[in-house]
Amino acid sequence: MDVSDRVTAAIIVIGNEILSGRTQDKNLNFLANNLGEIGIILVEARVIKDNEEAIIKTVNELKGKYHYIFTTGGIGPTHDDITSLAIAKAFNRKFIRDPRAVKELEAYYPEGMLNESRLKMADMPENSLLIKNPASGAPGFIIENVYVMAGVPHIMQAMFETIKPDLKRGAIVKSRSVTTYLLEGAISKGFEELQNKYPNLEMGSYPFKTGDRWGTDLIIRGTDDKLLDKAFKDLQEFIAKFD
Amino acid sequence: MDVSDRVTAAIIVIGNEILSGRTQDKNLNFLANNLGEIGIILVEARVIKDNEEAIIKTVNELKGKYHYIFTTGGIGPTHDDITSLAIAKAFNRKFIRDPRAVKELEAYYPEGMLNESRLKMADMPENSLLIKNPASGAPGFIIENVYVMAGVPHIMQAMFETIKPDLKRGAIVKSRSVTTYLLEGAISKGFEELQNKYPNLEMGSYPFKTGDRWGTDLIIRGTDDKLLDKAFKDLQEFIAKFD
Repeated sequence: MDVSDRVTAAIIVIGNEILSGRTQDKNLNFLANNLGEIGIILVEARVIKDNEEAIIKTVNELKGKYHYIFTTGGIGPTHDDITSLAIAKAFNRKFIRDPRAVKELEAYYPEGMLNESRLKMADMPENSLLIKNPASGAPGFIIENVYVMAGVPHIMQAMFETIKPDLKRGAIVKSRSVTTYLLEGAISKGFEELQNKYPNLEMGSYPFKTGDRWGTDLIIRGTDDKLLDKAFKDLQEFIAKFD
Repeated sequence: MDVSDRVTAAIIVIGNEILSGRTQDKNLNFLANNLGEIGIILVEARVIKDNEEAIIKTVNELKGKYHYIFTTGGIGPTHDDITSLAIAKAFNRKFIRDPRAVKELEAYYPEGMLNESRLKMADMPENSLLIKNPASGAPGFIIENVYVMAGVPHIMQAMFETIKPDLKRGAIVKSRSVTTYLLEGAISKGFEELQNKYPNLEMGSYPFKTGDRWGTDLIIRGTDDKLLDKAFKDLQEFIAKFD
């Protein structure tokens, strides 16, 4: 396992259905949590249409900025699945029927079921690495630092589990939190002072409402356990003063 | 009501808590659906950190590309709420304590509750328009085509309801859908032919799994009801052939 201090990523969610409101995206939250667990910092996410120009532009803009780019969506067998071809174009690579991917499909589909539409899922940029798909057969692929995965959440999750062990890991960001019925406006001055005391930690406050009652979650995030514990103790003491 | 053919929008979701995985974003889906209802096409969404540089860069990149930009998050009373200042900088406007916003806060908070932290929520770019906040008092604001709203979903939704009547409306995209237990790989050839027959409609297929059974939602989207009905009839006939 290669551990470095700061490993970064961006996600590109590709799908008209997310932007039309038909589908609530779940992939961003899953990837955010799972990347966080291995110390990969998700810096930004984009949600774009199944549009070749948008995919090419977004991939080319982001791939040089982060260690990893993860895309979800648009690699199925139907005409609206255009992600793989767009990624090939983004990298100026030939778009080929990958023989290893064909083998994966042959192994997955029962005799006679592997028609031309399904074989299309073996089309990808030349010299990609395959991402195994234990959930539904058709593989994703990796080209340089861009990981191209399915959009259906449980398929994407199955793909991610197969690549997770090989990802470069960074320092893991941990958190401590306090949930209080104090309001943000009451604690914000002291909370800011606490943030200023610990510049290497990231402190955030998140209001919530339960029934008619407002409250606030106060979160401290950072990679240094001792520092987190110290700041957390300060935070608890600060909150206790309001009792 | 001003009706034009194509009215476009982008959303900027601002919040470390979304990118850390702590919080599942719900604002994108709400806005996608509600914009769709009044014929505003959501073309893309960005999820970025509570980071001044990221906010400025993203706002400046997107504001000239779409009719509307909606931001969510980062306008509360705590130190991590930096959206308003960043937006002022993006527009090179003075960051002032808006007297109309102060009045809104005074009207909302009980005597003695409006402290300096809460007053901070009246700070915004000079010459903004206010977005009323029936849910929690502190207003959002509009600067040119950028609508700056809260991140807490029910507050954002209350704000959106107040601005919705005044938004420019476009042709409403409607949809027809068929849910089938046919698999994508089985129907994709015929479905593509149908898409080619109706270039002015957008057709998408979305696989799902219920228990152990796979199925596919086939969706046709477009603004012309007659054309939609015609294509939908064709789709039903196409699907019926598989029975």
